[in-house]
Amino acid sequence: MLMKNKLISDLKKTLPAENVLTTLEECYVYAQDATNIPQIKNLPDAVVFVDSIEQVQNVVKLANRYKIPVICRGAGTNVVGACVVEHGGIILNFSRMNKILEINSVNMTARVQPGVIVGDLQKQVDEIGLFYPPDPSNLAVSTIGGSIAQSSGGAKTFKYGSTKDYVIDMLVVMANGELLRTGANTIKNATGYNLGSLFVGSEGTLGIVVEATLKLIPKPEAKKVFMAYFDTVKEAVNAVNSIIDRKIFPATIDFMDKNAIQTVEKFYPAGLLTDKDAALLIEVDGFKVSMDYQEKVILEILQMSNASAIQSSHNDDEYNKIWTARRSSMGACAKLKPNVTTDDVIVPRENLAELVEGIRNICKKYNLTPCLVGHVGDGSVHPQIPIDYNDEAEYKNYKLAKSEIYDLTARLGGILSGEHGIGLMKRDHINKVINSVAIDYMRQIKKTFDPNNILNPYKIF
Amino acid sequence: MLMKNKLISDLKKTLPAENVLTTLEECYVYAQDATNIPQIKNLPDAVVFVDSIEQVQNVVKLANRYKIPVICRGAGTNVVGACVVEHGGIILNFSRMNKILEINSVNMTARVQPGVIVGDLQKQVDEIGLFYPPDPSNLAVSTIGGSIAQSSGGAKTFKYGSTKDYVIDMLVVMANGELLRTGANTIKNATGYNLGSLFVGSEGTLGIVVEATLKLIPKPEAKKVFMAYFDTVKEAVNAVNSIIDRKIFPATIDFMDKNAIQTVEKFYPAGLLTDKDAALLIEVDGFKVSMDYQEKVILEILQMSNASAIQSSHNDDEYNKIWTARRSSMGACAKLKPNVTTDDVIVPRENLAELVEGIRNICKKYNLTPCLVGHVGDGSVHPQIPIDYNDEAEYKNYKLAKSEIYDLTARLGGILSGEHGIGLMKRDHINKVINSVAIDYMRQIKKTFDPNNILNPYKIF
Repeated sequence: MLMKNKLISDLKKTLPAENVLTTLEECYVYAQDATNIPQIKNLPDAVVFVDSIEQVQNVVKLANRYKIPVICRGAGTNVVGACVVEHGGIILNFSRMNKILEINSVNMTARVQPGVIVGDLQKQVDEIGLFYPPDPSNLAVSTIGGSIAQSSGGAKTFKYGSTKDYVIDMLVVMANGELLRTGANTIKNATGYNLGSLFVGSEGTLGIVVEATLKLIPKPEAKKVFMAYFDTVKEAVNAVNSIIDRKIFPATIDFMDKNAIQTVEKFYPAGLLTDKDAALLIEVDGFKVSMDYQEKVILEILQMSNASAIQSSHNDDEYNKIWTARRSSMGACAKLKPNVTTDDVIVPRENLAELVEGIRNICKKYNLTPCLVGHVGDGSVHPQIPIDYNDEAEYKNYKLAKSEIYDLTARLGGILSGEHGIGLMKRDHINKVINSVAIDYMRQIKKTFDPNNILNPYKIF
Repeated sequence: MLMKNKLISDLKKTLPAENVLTTLEECYVYAQDATNIPQIKNLPDAVVFVDSIEQVQNVVKLANRYKIPVICRGAGTNVVGACVVEHGGIILNFSRMNKILEINSVNMTARVQPGVIVGDLQKQVDEIGLFYPPDPSNLAVSTIGGSIAQSSGGAKTFKYGSTKDYVIDMLVVMANGELLRTGANTIKNATGYNLGSLFVGSEGTLGIVVEATLKLIPKPEAKKVFMAYFDTVKEAVNAVNSIIDRKIFPATIDFMDKNAIQTVEKFYPAGLLTDKDAALLIEVDGFKVSMDYQEKVILEILQMSNASAIQSSHNDDEYNKIWTARRSSMGACAKLKPNVTTDDVIVPRENLAELVEGIRNICKKYNLTPCLVGHVGDGSVHPQIPIDYNDEAEYKNYKLAKSEIYDLTARLGGILSGEHGIGLMKRDHINKVINSVAIDYMRQIKKTFDPNNILNPYKIF
């Protein structure tokens, strides 16, 4: 307690005093992230708002001296508990470092602070005809810093890749307070080790990203979305294979299973067909002149694949209506029980139908009713499971089901996370998919970069 | 010498004896790579052909025990001396581990051994309508292992990215002989640290890649190339900016400067305009239905940008004719003097014209006549400099010019290598572009992964 008081006093000397929150109420507000972990046992010692790189360096130097954890936080939308404090420490709040420092249309890059909202960046670059493709579903609130920490993806990963493919340079505050620059403002780089890619997805455990330069691309002229229903998930996946065989490269190929469709229709009626086993949402983009051709090919294939009730968007309203159905899934699912959880297991696409079927069977065995949505192109599934954390038996079942889902994912050649990260929620399962040699080297890197284990300690493994 | 004899005897016990070459003549053959370093002072102690992952593990375990360097080699096309032996050791020859183990059209992946020729893979996946975009200019001979080691790019990096964007999983033999798997057969992965990206571009200094799974994409239906001439490099670069402003995303935007054009025309006459300061080669691809539209926009912009003698390809012959001119540059340049060298400096695109002008001025000062070619989209320049290594004064000038070119690149916010790597040729200059904090962490990673410094020692830094 003495040390804690000393730390807080030092923090208030280092930063403007009003940047440092320490009351029980204030600390409690920052104890949770969007994971909604059942019982929060630990609170941060302080919540610190930072305004500059130098302030971050000063806080980290203090923390390193006191050997006290530093956990970064943008919008707190993390769903694997990566922003949750387990051993006390400082929450570093980046919400004020939210400036787009430069958008350069010749270099096609954006230089941003970590607190920039992903959706805000997308809108601003869109206005000058450029495109930042990573689109996590919470992009209206989630930040670039969080995107980098978790290597977040989204519906367009299939064609455009995820956050890691768009970060070309970063400034990173290391555990000892030093400032490291990962690269240069160039879209390719074969000069020394690719430290940048090591930080992306490291969940704040190796360094603290305080500025990033992101690659932008020319914005496609036009886009169109299709929705269609299938009697089986397998048929839906086969339709996707046929589309790719015809050299169409959709930006998005998402799916919803029967329970997701029914749940959306129950709470947000939109005329969805509730007797079908699966629905596909396919978005294509490109030159205006290619839209009719892409539509023709996709409609042909959907018809040959036994799809029913095929819809195409012909304007923004229709486009948004179709997407709203898909995006309402989590919200609708949350109305079924007091809590809802999500996940992001991913397998090679050839095994996707088996993964979906397997998840349903496992959930049935444990009396859980998941809404399954996901990105067929990537082979990823988001099982959204409604649950009552206060029902101890149900929570126990839920944990058993999750463990079996991870076993199944591993058996199908997949991996635990495609775009959310591991955090504290999946760390006990990481050895199911990462070999022990790799985990050993990951641990060695962690120890090398952060010898006092102050940066988001014990997350990932 | 005793230790060397003991090592060779152990190698011959571990592997089929015929896999181990040790005569002076045999070792001399493998002393050089495509860098053509003036004086080779050191030979390998042995050249070892490997046929399996287990053999690689066994050789590396031996080398680690004897603390003897291991330098991997595919086709030896490296141009930064990364395959050159400086301190004795074993050349590990991967030319027999050249099998495409699987091409999976549903997952859109290829699983390959490191000795697979890049061009062979491209052809095989092309036959089933898929596309592996990285296209180093030596792809007819260079290997995937080398591509991964140097993070090689090529003309299509602007739109499609480089090797690092296509490697989704690897098996890597570590310095102690352990086998590490970097990821999974999935196109996105947020499960633990991205070890894969750390190995790509590490030039064989952190581990030895013995198998890789590569991402493929649907093959564009059609492509077309345009060539046009400009009075100044600046005008050429401005034309590129206008193309991107119109939302055209070319697969390639390459350029040749006056000396490159004149040299190609001198040795391989093709009717190029030799009085112009720069030529652009622009390749677009996509749906057949979009080709006329893309052509119309590009021709409009080229005309408005004062381009002369604009050509478009209307069939494979015309396509190949235009590309042959660009690809002949290095060969033509090699005819001017006994030796020729290349490089791959890269800057933000807004500084490209200044880089080109600066390189010309530096070379003029040192009485060198470079052929400049490069990828405008990426901001990269390949200065191809003809030189006589036996002319000591010229070689000294060449080294001074190179140092100034790197200083200029750094000043323009660029980096020393976009796609060739650093090897031994640029390691003395790496601190011009990478900050000391980053180099320190790179060194720490090297020490953690390879404590006895046996894996391609002293390359990069």
